[in-house]
Amino acid sequence: MLIRLSQLFFRTLREDPVDAEVASHRLLVRAGYIRRAAPGIYSWLPLGLRVLAKVEQVVREEMAAAGAQEVHFPALLPREPYEATGRWTEYGPNIFRLKDRKGGDYLLAPTHEEMFTLLVKDLYSSYKDLPLALYQIQTKYRDEARPRAGLIRGREFIMKDAYSFDVDDAGLAVSYQSQRDAYERIFSRLGLEYVIVAATSGAMGGSRSEEFLTPTAIGEDTFVRSPGGYAANVEAVTTVVPDAVPFDDAPAAHVEDTPDTPTIDTLVAVANERFARPDRPWAAADTLKNVVLALVHPTGERELLVVGLPGDREVDLKRLEASVAPAEVEAAGDADFAAHPELVRGYLGPGVLGPNVPVAEGAGDTARTSVRYLLDPRVVVGTRWITGANEHGKHVFDLVAGRDFTADGTVEAAEVRAGDPAPDGSGPLELARGIEIGHIFALGRKYAQALGLTVLDQNGKAQVVTMGSYGVGVTRVLAALAEANNDERGLAWPAHVAPAHVHVVATGKDPAVFEAADALATELSSRGVEVLYDDRPGKVSPGVKFADAELLGVPLVVVVGRGLAEGVVEVRPRVGGTTEQVPVAEAADRVSALVDALLAV
Amino acid sequence: MLIRLSQLFFRTLREDPVDAEVASHRLLVRAGYIRRAAPGIYSWLPLGLRVLAKVEQVVREEMAAAGAQEVHFPALLPREPYEATGRWTEYGPNIFRLKDRKGGDYLLAPTHEEMFTLLVKDLYSSYKDLPLALYQIQTKYRDEARPRAGLIRGREFIMKDAYSFDVDDAGLAVSYQSQRDAYERIFSRLGLEYVIVAATSGAMGGSRSEEFLTPTAIGEDTFVRSPGGYAANVEAVTTVVPDAVPFDDAPAAHVEDTPDTPTIDTLVAVANERFARPDRPWAAADTLKNVVLALVHPTGERELLVVGLPGDREVDLKRLEASVAPAEVEAAGDADFAAHPELVRGYLGPGVLGPNVPVAEGAGDTARTSVRYLLDPRVVVGTRWITGANEHGKHVFDLVAGRDFTADGTVEAAEVRAGDPAPDGSGPLELARGIEIGHIFALGRKYAQALGLTVLDQNGKAQVVTMGSYGVGVTRVLAALAEANNDERGLAWPAHVAPAHVHVVATGKDPAVFEAADALATELSSRGVEVLYDDRPGKVSPGVKFADAELLGVPLVVVVGRGLAEGVVEVRPRVGGTTEQVPVAEAADRVSALVDALLAV
Repeated sequence: MLIRLSQLFFRTLREDPVDAEVASHRLLVRAGYIRRAAPGIYSWLPLGLRVLAKVEQVVREEMAAAGAQEVHFPALLPREPYEATGRWTEYGPNIFRLKDRKGGDYLLAPTHEEMFTLLVKDLYSSYKDLPLALYQIQTKYRDEARPRAGLIRGREFIMKDAYSFDVDDAGLAVSYQSQRDAYERIFSRLGLEYVIVAATSGAMGGSRSEEFLTPTAIGEDTFVRSPGGYAANVEAVTTVVPDAVPFDDAPAAHVEDTPDTPTIDTLVAVANERFARPDRPWAAADTLKNVVLALVHPTGERELLVVGLPGDREVDLKRLEASVAPAEVEAAGDADFAAHPELVRGYLGPGVLGPNVPVAEGAGDTARTSVRYLLDPRVVVGTRWITGANEHGKHVFDLVAGRDFTADGTVEAAEVRAGDPAPDGSGPLELARGIEIGHIFALGRKYAQALGLTVLDQNGKAQVVTMGSYGVGVTRVLAALAEANNDERGLAWPAHVAPAHVHVVATGKDPAVFEAADALATELSSRGVEVLYDDRPGKVSPGVKFADAELLGVPLVVVVGRGLAEGVVEVRPRVGGTTEQVPVAEAADRVSALVDALLAV
Repeated sequence: MLIRLSQLFFRTLREDPVDAEVASHRLLVRAGYIRRAAPGIYSWLPLGLRVLAKVEQVVREEMAAAGAQEVHFPALLPREPYEATGRWTEYGPNIFRLKDRKGGDYLLAPTHEEMFTLLVKDLYSSYKDLPLALYQIQTKYRDEARPRAGLIRGREFIMKDAYSFDVDDAGLAVSYQSQRDAYERIFSRLGLEYVIVAATSGAMGGSRSEEFLTPTAIGEDTFVRSPGGYAANVEAVTTVVPDAVPFDDAPAAHVEDTPDTPTIDTLVAVANERFARPDRPWAAADTLKNVVLALVHPTGERELLVVGLPGDREVDLKRLEASVAPAEVEAAGDADFAAHPELVRGYLGPGVLGPNVPVAEGAGDTARTSVRYLLDPRVVVGTRWITGANEHGKHVFDLVAGRDFTADGTVEAAEVRAGDPAPDGSGPLELARGIEIGHIFALGRKYAQALGLTVLDQNGKAQVVTMGSYGVGVTRVLAALAEANNDERGLAWPAHVAPAHVHVVATGKDPAVFEAADALATELSSRGVEVLYDDRPGKVSPGVKFADAELLGVPLVVVVGRGLAEGVVEVRPRVGGTTEQVPVAEAADRVSALVDALLAV
């Protein structure tokens, strides 16, 4: 393969696109790989399409190795199958819906569990047909509220989605492991660092789910790891619940004047000033913060919720969303408080919250609100709190959980912090950020049940099939590769996915240089090396050509220029390594060898 | 490549699907290549996907040979570019429109002229950047009123769409010819018979357009050919206008009672009975039929139109639609006639039609209707007609065009018939039907003008770029191949696009047979032959296996069965040719040679 830049449809940009926040987005646009067509929707230029095809090829090969067969489904699908599983509604505003000319309801599929289930139901009927694994590489749609970071969170994107079908749980476990192994091979081959973390199943349903994350500071996902090997998406972390505390000796709750203390900081300061405790100063962790939030259900219904948690922790909206899926979570607004005057902003406490059960007197109890109240799991029985007394400028002290108040339940909504204990006792957690590049689900029987996919077992009895679903964000993987492989000068692709192996640059105006460069490019191409050849005429300066080569990010750059007079060309890796002066006659051999070495990694 | 049927995700059906009208649809479903997901929307099973990939590969290679570079655009696009060219409205109900969560208008693109124009505008600015040809193979959407014939007229389908960009008309001519040549190579390589016919440009716009049709009785397109080499889509045929006729001696028009003559047949019968002409009987061609139709404009506006044409011809709705594009045409209904009582059904004549100009008295003139009146070009000045007198049971005779009536213009709306003269004088036309598999357009400057795509010429002056657009219906081509290559037993693919080259069938229950078949399949596969191997266990009868092999349509069938005892296997082509008994030891050589011969065609 030989691409001459004089003919290639590309243009590099010296300036960053204004909407680009992350390196991959910035550089893929600047290097002429992609262009934005609409928010979260991109067009692919020739070089981008080459990289995409290479990523897809790796995915295809590993799917085949895992015994998965390729099929292809439409993106435009009728409502009915998604209605049957409840997802037509559950997806809320996150999917694109439309009507055809006859008024029929359609969606642009965000994922295809329903269709795969129906297809297998159409074709197969016996346990002898299973296990079965199918996949597709296909364009998906999601009406993201906040498309961002270029290809990382788009609204039209390419996914590999695979599905497994088994007659029993043991079979599902094997299928799940087979895809999990395939994912490890895919990301290893692509040279993409990855971490496998426990995850929540969210709207997908199912019993077990893991995410493949590639660590990067710009990742949208936060995950945790412990020294003992625990790893989880932060949404999947469960709080280590402390033991209950004896409270027989605890003083009675007492309401105090705490003027101008609408925040935890002001409250702690006033508490220390007016109600200093003898043993140590009050701290934020002694306060119980009650945060009013709004759940937006897929039907559009808005429901308020109060989360009570230690005052030294914030509510993590993504963790809360994982707990209340498929609802989305928003901060409560003025209208919400206006509709609930019993929720006194800044001074809200359990006195008006939680189920209407008898609790101790003198705890600021008034008429109970109808708003649901959920507590952080750390607020165990016997813990003592400073918290709102449901009146401006007043807080209640020594309010004891289980004695003075209770709630409608607990919820995993508090932020996870570095140093928190791992739920499996494997030590303190450290936090990191990553991009989700794969997600695998042991779905179980949810979809097969809803859509009637059964097979006859050995005894002729119908069994509901158990399924798994396994996704790789193909376009996101490409972005993650760009994110992981760049420097201030541009992209620096791993050889396996680079749009070419070698970038030959002819500099100056000497026809002999262009002849030699052309001969070298042609020779390399004939040996199976993929070559980009910058044959643009002499008025394109060497500086521009070098800058473009560095921006485009082909792993090996060969400069044919002034050195030719001395019979040498310059060979330099895009990153690291050393520049070599190679005699022209040996150049093809030397470059081929270097390419082989890069590809052998 | 070796696919074992015991592992392959497929199922053949003995019964035709109820909704399948044509062989390709019927057989592609029965053989397990595709499945219907919604009207005009199909899923691809593994074997179908293999054929599709082969068709795409041929297209890719020929696009590359024509110097076109591959890119890839989104399917989901914002309204604005299509608004700028007027197509957002012009497409009327034929495109899928939707809104995103912010209320923004989007469409699922039916074709991408606008986006390619904007992309080239984004990247290029000089005449030196041109000529340029770009293409994509991409999923397209069209909300067909009547999706039919499986993949032939779908609502989600795959197209190769290419676009050329030139600085002047001469350049466009070269680019157009280059794509035209590429299309000839594509269809020749695919073994698909094709005819290139002149076509109308329709909603696409532009100066010149040709269609590639593959002749077949089930085609939706009618085309014509003359002995002298004229070929056109029937919509593009222009009527040969006869010379005007002298009418000085013509008698005055006279209204006659013609009771119960609402149709041409009844009118001709009554005319011959009551008003027999001396020289010959009246014929349908002596009558002027006035047909009331409704145009539905893209805005949804409904406009009535009357077409006057010789009574021996029908209105061809597709020809009329090509003349009135982007409006669609429907028959007028009761409500239309109720709204226009001056249009007397069955007895409508020019007396109430056409512009309000003085014509001869006694011709049944009454108050003119506001409905537009267009005449077939054969209704030239001086021709004499029997036609409606705008009163129940009455017709006017000897009504002379140009003397007694006129119209708002002419229109190409009458059916084209075998024997009609070719417009270029090359002889009588013959009619045939075909499927449109390609369409090429010299668009000119319409899109570049609307979207501001200019380049600076040698003199530094901005020139509007001139464009072409070139489409191949990839999924439709696959259907056309299936349509052209089948018999009563199933599909019969040409070797280049077949899902495999050889279908090895092991029959019976003898383990030695399966071992020999497996060895042969493996050996062939190792030589690069693509093998389907029917290794299903012995309880699948030889009859079922043979029937499946014939349904699937792989070009060469190798049976390993009872002959093995005599040391031979049976090699038979799917169609034609003769069955050979080949010694087992020579089987791999012989089959490889036969495959090479098939692929060399």
